[in-house]
Amino acid sequence: MNDIFKIKDNTLFIDNVSTVALAKEYGTPLYVYSETEIRRRIDEIKTMFTEKYKRAKAAYASKAFLTVAMAQLINREGLLLDVVSGGELYTAIAAGFPAARIEFHGNNKSYEELDRAIGYGVGKIIIDAFGELEMIENLAEKYSRNVNVLFRITPAVEVDTHSFISTGHADSKFGFSMDARDEGNLNGIYSLFQKAIESKFVTLSGIHFHIGSQLFTNKSHLDALAVALGVYREVNDRFGYALPEINIGGGFGANYTEADDRKPYSYFLDPVMEEVQRFCAQYDLKEPTIVIEPGRSIVGEAGITLYTVGSIRTSGGGTKYVSIDGGMPDNIRPALYGAKYEAILANKADEPVSETVTICGKCCETGDKIIEDGTLARAERGDILAVFTTGAYGYSMASNYNRLPVPAVLFVADGKVKEIVKRQTFEDLIRNDLTI
Amino acid sequence: MNDIFKIKDNTLFIDNVSTVALAKEYGTPLYVYSETEIRRRIDEIKTMFTEKYKRAKAAYASKAFLTVAMAQLINREGLLLDVVSGGELYTAIAAGFPAARIEFHGNNKSYEELDRAIGYGVGKIIIDAFGELEMIENLAEKYSRNVNVLFRITPAVEVDTHSFISTGHADSKFGFSMDARDEGNLNGIYSLFQKAIESKFVTLSGIHFHIGSQLFTNKSHLDALAVALGVYREVNDRFGYALPEINIGGGFGANYTEADDRKPYSYFLDPVMEEVQRFCAQYDLKEPTIVIEPGRSIVGEAGITLYTVGSIRTSGGGTKYVSIDGGMPDNIRPALYGAKYEAILANKADEPVSETVTICGKCCETGDKIIEDGTLARAERGDILAVFTTGAYGYSMASNYNRLPVPAVLFVADGKVKEIVKRQTFEDLIRNDLTI
Repeated sequence: MNDIFKIKDNTLFIDNVSTVALAKEYGTPLYVYSETEIRRRIDEIKTMFTEKYKRAKAAYASKAFLTVAMAQLINREGLLLDVVSGGELYTAIAAGFPAARIEFHGNNKSYEELDRAIGYGVGKIIIDAFGELEMIENLAEKYSRNVNVLFRITPAVEVDTHSFISTGHADSKFGFSMDARDEGNLNGIYSLFQKAIESKFVTLSGIHFHIGSQLFTNKSHLDALAVALGVYREVNDRFGYALPEINIGGGFGANYTEADDRKPYSYFLDPVMEEVQRFCAQYDLKEPTIVIEPGRSIVGEAGITLYTVGSIRTSGGGTKYVSIDGGMPDNIRPALYGAKYEAILANKADEPVSETVTICGKCCETGDKIIEDGTLARAERGDILAVFTTGAYGYSMASNYNRLPVPAVLFVADGKVKEIVKRQTFEDLIRNDLTI
Repeated sequence: MNDIFKIKDNTLFIDNVSTVALAKEYGTPLYVYSETEIRRRIDEIKTMFTEKYKRAKAAYASKAFLTVAMAQLINREGLLLDVVSGGELYTAIAAGFPAARIEFHGNNKSYEELDRAIGYGVGKIIIDAFGELEMIENLAEKYSRNVNVLFRITPAVEVDTHSFISTGHADSKFGFSMDARDEGNLNGIYSLFQKAIESKFVTLSGIHFHIGSQLFTNKSHLDALAVALGVYREVNDRFGYALPEINIGGGFGANYTEADDRKPYSYFLDPVMEEVQRFCAQYDLKEPTIVIEPGRSIVGEAGITLYTVGSIRTSGGGTKYVSIDGGMPDNIRPALYGAKYEAILANKADEPVSETVTICGKCCETGDKIIEDGTLARAERGDILAVFTTGAYGYSMASNYNRLPVPAVLFVADGKVKEIVKRQTFEDLIRNDLTI
């Protein structure tokens, strides 16, 4: 258990706030984030990376968890912000996040999204597909604004994670493969780079890769870096152009269960920076800035979800089911990826684990389980269940399946509580409905 | 292809409306339902079941697809409505659906939900867990209102479908197993029935089972019916009480691809009714009313999703990816269940299929694919893609993942168009957000 959690009076505390008191005041299900833990992970990034190395920057990957308040926090911490859609961009701008510090991603950006991004003046656009550069040039001209672009490349490395969140393999929907070519573009990625270098509308800022998520070894990053440095050198040799930056994406793991082994950022990034320095010294090249895009590793462990226990039954098959008042609508990851979680009864936090149970949600669906064959103290109707490490891809993937409202979201910090997203109401569910 | 679809001028029409014109007017992604097809499936239920048999009723299973307009349509068609949460109940009541024709389900109903349901005066509550009867009695007293209850039983039959949507097996989170007992209740389900029969607050209306979804054979229904009839007879023998109804749930399949083989309702229900009659004649029992709960089979094939094609690329692995402007946020079923779909280019509907492609969404996630290795005419940026049979569990499971707004929903009927849910706006995405 992360040390942001403490047990006092048989009750689980997060960041010095009683989870049982939070459940009582704000209702359940409830997403609760420790602001202290978020800032601690950001501090680790600063200490181990952005302040340690001269040419190092970090962007928070919004897709893990984004609200207006979260964008404000990232802004105050001085990180860049990585967004992947018009909706994420809108949220960031609504939070007052400076457009110049936003990086815009996406395998299928629409013209309207690019229009909005360039209209706001986002700092960087990461080009992911053929046709995108032309749209950007068109819009750069419309707004009389130079646009900084990177190209996402597919380094074709193997990654040890769930296939859904492995993104750097050869057969990926993302980025340009090393020999990428469309009709009339027979020179692969280098002709794209040349076009960008020669364009009067854009500045070629570099290359980007992202190889996958929830990684615990640095091998894939280093394998992909080797590919990227090869491209970096080739661009230098062919065009005499030093790419200002290489963005190595995210993928740094978080601890969900005791089987996970989160590594400090330095474990991934020190070897990366050493290799960049070594490579550039060897070939007498200017050192590029290295940019990272952590998401899950910043917010994952900071977040928990609180539920109220409802019906409890032992099935004919002998499984003891403990039902909670949320489930797959607020956390689809167990059903979608087979993701594993750990939980405790927050109001019986000191009581010994005594039962093997399956914690299921309230949806009319058998797949709606949060934890299969987990352990708990003896559960009763009305207990408060806390599921750990739900900070990434819980709220961000939430649905209204079975028309369950999306839970409220809280930030807590050393005993203080701030509500950052109000609970959806039933009225919200039909806000856009029309009668016939 | 369902005959509600026609091709004219190289364009796909649904219910005599051009899908290309709809995409242009309402934007994409866009959910479009043929009202004619929905009513046709309801007519089939009437002809083959509720009007054919004296003791036969049908409830539409809201969880497949519910909006205010959909509840209105079901109300006008005279069906019952099956809801599984406070949110579904709220939506139905907001649509003016008579509470007396609503059946309230759920493996973990909260006290607040039951309070709302009994306060509205819902027709039936299907008790799914220990403790529920006591909450209902308490609320029935509060509202001085008799409540009709059924008990959901788990018939412990094997079902040929995806494990996530198989619900009648012995090891289920739903209902009471045949030997269900909690502490102090050693007589299994019959002591529950006795308690309900003797209660002055509730009327025991019958028993319910639901064995799973997307079925193409009637064997599981008949196996489960045999179990239910045994219970029916036992209740009669023990208590001299004829259960008014047996609710046999839903599970009737829809055609997603050519590999699916949807059966008429009569294929499932004629043998059920014959067996009920035979059984009751054999044991000289009063015949119960049989209730069904179709959802997917009513709306599945009636619905399509329209998308605009964006970036197209061939990966280093040789896969041709056609990207669309939606994906897993509007249809999680391929990622969640490995569900298969078929699609065509709606603006090239007459053009021969010429390519094997993977249709992927715009989310930053490799699992975001709608169709893997499907066939299409040659796709270009700007084409309109129509994916068939998205009417069930598309909109109802929609999320804002990557902060994509939920698409608009249309009803079309013989050339006429009604918008029934407005597209979510970016403003909607941050409506409940608070600043820090």
